[in-house]
Amino acid sequence: MTQNQIKIGIAGLGTVGTGVINLINKNKNEIIERTGCELIVQCISASNKNKQRSCDVEGINFYSDPIDMLNQESIDIFVELIGGESIAKDLVVKALEKKVHVVTANKALIALHGAEVSMLSLKNEREILYEASVAGAVPIVKVIRESLSANNIEWIAGIINGTTNYILTEMLISEKSFDTVLQEAKDLGYAESDPSFDIGGVDAAHKLTILASICFGIPLNFQSIYVEGIEEIELEDLKNARELGYIVKHLAIARKKDTGIELRVHPCLVPKTRLLANVNGVKNAVVINSDAAGSTLYYGAGAGSLATASAVVSDIIDISRSLVQKANYTIPFLGYKNIIPENNISKIIDVETRYYLRIKVTNKPGVLADITKIFGKKSISIESILQKEDAEKDVNVPIVLVTHKVIEKNIDEALNEIEKLDVVKDKIKRIRIEELNS
Amino acid sequence: MTQNQIKIGIAGLGTVGTGVINLINKNKNEIIERTGCELIVQCISASNKNKQRSCDVEGINFYSDPIDMLNQESIDIFVELIGGESIAKDLVVKALEKKVHVVTANKALIALHGAEVSMLSLKNEREILYEASVAGAVPIVKVIRESLSANNIEWIAGIINGTTNYILTEMLISEKSFDTVLQEAKDLGYAESDPSFDIGGVDAAHKLTILASICFGIPLNFQSIYVEGIEEIELEDLKNARELGYIVKHLAIARKKDTGIELRVHPCLVPKTRLLANVNGVKNAVVINSDAAGSTLYYGAGAGSLATASAVVSDIIDISRSLVQKANYTIPFLGYKNIIPENNISKIIDVETRYYLRIKVTNKPGVLADITKIFGKKSISIESILQKEDAEKDVNVPIVLVTHKVIEKNIDEALNEIEKLDVVKDKIKRIRIEELNS
Repeated sequence: MTQNQIKIGIAGLGTVGTGVINLINKNKNEIIERTGCELIVQCISASNKNKQRSCDVEGINFYSDPIDMLNQESIDIFVELIGGESIAKDLVVKALEKKVHVVTANKALIALHGAEVSMLSLKNEREILYEASVAGAVPIVKVIRESLSANNIEWIAGIINGTTNYILTEMLISEKSFDTVLQEAKDLGYAESDPSFDIGGVDAAHKLTILASICFGIPLNFQSIYVEGIEEIELEDLKNARELGYIVKHLAIARKKDTGIELRVHPCLVPKTRLLANVNGVKNAVVINSDAAGSTLYYGAGAGSLATASAVVSDIIDISRSLVQKANYTIPFLGYKNIIPENNISKIIDVETRYYLRIKVTNKPGVLADITKIFGKKSISIESILQKEDAEKDVNVPIVLVTHKVIEKNIDEALNEIEKLDVVKDKIKRIRIEELNS
Repeated sequence: MTQNQIKIGIAGLGTVGTGVINLINKNKNEIIERTGCELIVQCISASNKNKQRSCDVEGINFYSDPIDMLNQESIDIFVELIGGESIAKDLVVKALEKKVHVVTANKALIALHGAEVSMLSLKNEREILYEASVAGAVPIVKVIRESLSANNIEWIAGIINGTTNYILTEMLISEKSFDTVLQEAKDLGYAESDPSFDIGGVDAAHKLTILASICFGIPLNFQSIYVEGIEEIELEDLKNARELGYIVKHLAIARKKDTGIELRVHPCLVPKTRLLANVNGVKNAVVINSDAAGSTLYYGAGAGSLATASAVVSDIIDISRSLVQKANYTIPFLGYKNIIPENNISKIIDVETRYYLRIKVTNKPGVLADITKIFGKKSISIESILQKEDAEKDVNVPIVLVTHKVIEKNIDEALNEIEKLDVVKDKIKRIRIEELNS
């Protein structure tokens, strides 16, 4: 296979920029397998060359002026990670005019100048992709532009600012005031030192501008959005809402109605049973209601170095795939160029999980001792036991046990032995436990 | 703009086939705007021409033999919606050999014969897409193949069979036995008359075969999956699990470990607080844990006529976009070819929602009457009131009210008037309520 290389220039080496460099290094082989090409970070620009950074920039051409970088380097994809409006826009315009593809994570740029850069993208026949501009690792832009492309979208509602969601979650859990939690969020790095764009709703409004436009085919229209922040929310209201069966969330909502399109960002009471009400901490989630797909939801990390880099690099890969392929189809059938022929699949007897067990026994003294002795022999330790205390002697009763982690082979052998005890009635019920936490 | 047309042939006119025809008709304009081309269903095949169907087939060439259709018609995309293995595979092979792109919703075909059809797809330089084969409307195949392409995926866990999830949900809610709920599910059309593939886990195993392959780059390997169904689950275990803080779900799990890859389908106890534990009824959801994006979740309808059609038509549109475009980029910047210039955005005062209100008042006789009189004048009706009964006279107390739906303008006016009452202290707190249910 001829190895293709895609040359990348990155402007901005903050949280996201270092994440992109780290991710491209870390998953180099994975990316080659999925894309059929190698991503080469050829040049970077940042204001201070000597600043200590958590990524390896050795061998990468460095510029303190990103305009110089664009003038002097020959690259395939320009990655704009400076943020804000003015310089970022000039750079993106220059890159497109130089017929270089653009990837950006810049929500303000797209929300406020998207129409202009889109025209330049069309004129110069170069892509500008912006998955990372909304909801971090959650691929909401691709989902709307591609996966729901057959749908008439009716409404969209999202938790798309992690800072506000962290504050609302934490106020209720710890029963603290808005001001106290805001200070803690700053200390933890979940809120900026000037958090007004987040807690005031402007950040969410930038993102909603983009979402509404790709959902409904309307112009990017930041000015038309009604914006309310969470500064006025008091703990008392969060508790009252819970008593009434609701959780307060800061939502961005766009809804197509006969009378017009509603675009609004503000706190809402959401029924407790909705998945959106259960999205906690800094996480983001978006619900889309459309005529064919119905209600679908997308959840994940809305910020963070590698999480945002995941979205940026997926855009880089989308462009790379189309650059290195000549055929119509750019994505390998199973996502990888070469399927690893070696197939190292574990046997179920080697799987390690915790177990829920229900053992029906005759209620006699010493029954539990007999059972736990067998578990002990097989190195199975018990985390908790649920036993109804009120059973009469000699009556059949269930013992419900939860084990610590154990290899399936051991539990097989133990249960086999326990089922042979006289006091044990019926086959033992067992269900594996999955924590789903890592 | 030159109008391009994409000619489509569909084999199979069951639930999904009729959904695809209905969706292409219903959202004809939406699809033209998003794709720049018109989708034309040129021919269909089904065993019985005269069967009553819930879609309009007037003007579409009809074949009772899909092989005849492929032989005689000149089409751009062949859509295989017959299901099962034997005929479906022959048809897909024939289409690719005729250099026709293929879209299928057939999980068994991909899981069992994917390697073979993939080779043919490469050889003939034609696409075969299969988004609808896993989790219906949830775009999980695209997310893994494209959005998470920069990630090393660690594990995936999903509720990918709606029938089993409906049964487990309903058993616990209604406190009914497995057999009773299975019969109800059949009556409601949520379970097939022979439900063994669903409740036995084979359907989920077919889907997990596909997911594991695109997550890890391993061969499609149905035979290696450990499969357990939900036939042995008793209501007693669901209730015990809940008492212990868990919900029982039928999960499909693939996990990369140092010792090998685990592939398993079986019932699990999942901690109550996980979003996956709160996915109820026939809905599907998949959690993916990967090194950069972290934990992301995708939720929606796993089956149904239009929901599955949404995925099928998104694949048709993906192929169509690359067929009608000459440039590298195939997706319009904002998802639509032409952004509607007219911009009918509603004003916030015209938005209609329910309201949470907290009014701080001096506890005097007649206060509530004064307030409700003003609401009545503005046609605002009260759904519920939360009032602490133990307040002393003349002390400041909060009245918490939930209104029925009301136009924002009316609530503005009413609150303005109420705030002028002598007994009302401070500004009234108000938060909008969003049901998010339609």
